[in-house]
Amino acid sequence: MHIFPIRVYYEDTDMAGIVYYANYLRYIERARSHWVREVGVDQNAMRAAGVVFVVRRVEADYLVPARFEDDLVVETSIMKLTGVRMVFLQRVMKDGAPLFEALVTVACLNDAGRVVRLPAEIEVLQPPN
Amino acid sequence: MHIFPIRVYYEDTDMAGIVYYANYLRYIERARSHWVREVGVDQNAMRAAGVVFVVRRVEADYLVPARFEDDLVVETSIMKLTGVRMVFLQRVMKDGAPLFEALVTVACLNDAGRVVRLPAEIEVLQPPN
Amino acid sequence: MHIFPIRVYYEDTDMAGIVYYANYLRYIERARSHWVREVGVDQNAMRAAGVVFVVRRVEADYLVPARFEDDLVVETSIMKLTGVRMVFLQRVMKDGAPLFEALVTVACLNDAGRVVRLPAEIEVLQPPN
Amino acid sequence: MHIFPIRVYYEDTDMAGIVYYANYLRYIERARSHWVREVGVDQNAMRAAGVVFVVRRVEADYLVPARFEDDLVVETSIMKLTGVRMVFLQRVMKDGAPLFEALVTVACLNDAGRVVRLPAEIEVLQPPN
Repeated sequence: MHIFPIRVYYEDTDMAGIVYYANYLRYIERARSHWVREVGVDQNAMRAAGVVFVVRRVEADYLVPARFEDDLVVETSIMKLTGVRMVFLQRVMKDGAPLFEALVTVACLNDAGRVVRLPAEIEVLQPPN
Repeated sequence: MHIFPIRVYYEDTDMAGIVYYANYLRYIERARSHWVREVGVDQNAMRAAGVVFVVRRVEADYLVPARFEDDLVVETSIMKLTGVRMVFLQRVMKDGAPLFEALVTVACLNDAGRVVRLPAEIEVLQPPN
Repeated sequence: MHIFPIRVYYEDTDMAGIVYYANYLRYIERARSHWVREVGVDQNAMRAAGVVFVVRRVEADYLVPARFEDDLVVETSIMKLTGVRMVFLQRVMKDGAPLFEALVTVACLNDAGRVVRLPAEIEVLQPPN
Repeated sequence: MHIFPIRVYYEDTDMAGIVYYANYLRYIERARSHWVREVGVDQNAMRAAGVVFVVRRVEADYLVPARFEDDLVVETSIMKLTGVRMVFLQRVMKDGAPLFEALVTVACLNDAGRVVRLPAEIEVLQPPN
């Protein structure tokens, strides 16, 4: 499991005084970006080669709202990994309790918009048995 | 069904040249805000009374990427409506074809974070039989 | 002068209950994008040719905060126009009174990060004498 | 001078492949939030008391674009401090060179939209002689 810290800033909140619902998707992508970089994927080089990661599906539950200056942790695990698709389970936690939880399906597209194989480095991210 | 137009701006795109995945959630909320206002809900008055709409769940499929200066349409329908919860089906369309599709569950919370009844005006938004 | 309407959505507000200060820059860029498209500039074609508009300088005054569901108008005029640089005066208005006002200097950069000439279509946007 | 690290994520970029111009204002506010918290200002308590920081003026120069996965540093200094107004000089640096530079004027407003005194804790943030 990958662990990534986030602090909530003014920009993240809305007039309800809580984190705006779309911003959790920004948080969890930051965590995914850190993780794939840690295992050796260079997204700038991928893009120069015409390949980008794209999200295909998000299934998200909003459990408890996060608030300004909360110190959060994004926990990321791999649930499924095939040659062309990976499914992440991502939780945004505060003081050990989940505020937000999502299953995120990611694939790679080339310039022509076709699905292509995931980078080989990703293979180290194996799901639990 | 409610229809709402969106144009894609620079701010919405990312370095992959397409609309950043979290921004579809902004698009579909704009459409929901317009709709609830059209049926007479005043979200400023609700908030002054300590009640806000919150999203509880999003199930989203990203089908085809939207791009800069695309003219899109958000189609919104009600799938389920109870006293405390509504489920919207929302599609982002381009030239009649869906790019993005989501089921969004919304509830109302009061100041204490408790679920409260939806505003009465919402009841006109009946799901199809 | 170019006129462009904006409604304030949830996504634009912050926990102070007002529009987050960075979001005025999003608003005024939407207005600039509409204007340059109206005079015939195709930013997608420009980008395919390796040229993009970039902002070089912003001088912004925040006069009165905008709020959720405000219906605003962005007024844009050209203050200066040379072959390589244009300066816009942009005001965000509500009910005829300015909430925000900015001078924005824009140039064009090529792939190598060099300043290049502005698109010829821009020349119709002459400043007042 | 206050030092604050930022990494550039996908969400920050636009289709030009660089950080979208409004997002520098998000970056520098994160730095200001960290700093005022470090000197003992509790913005949640302020807000509960009906007082918020607001930006009154931004004068920003965009020197060199930041890119995806850049590791940046926000340097913040106080240029002027009176009872009701502070002016920050903020630079976004990469490898010791400035990419973005801004003078930001901040004040405090109460519920009625009136300017009120800055929190006393701020007084430790003295400008250089």
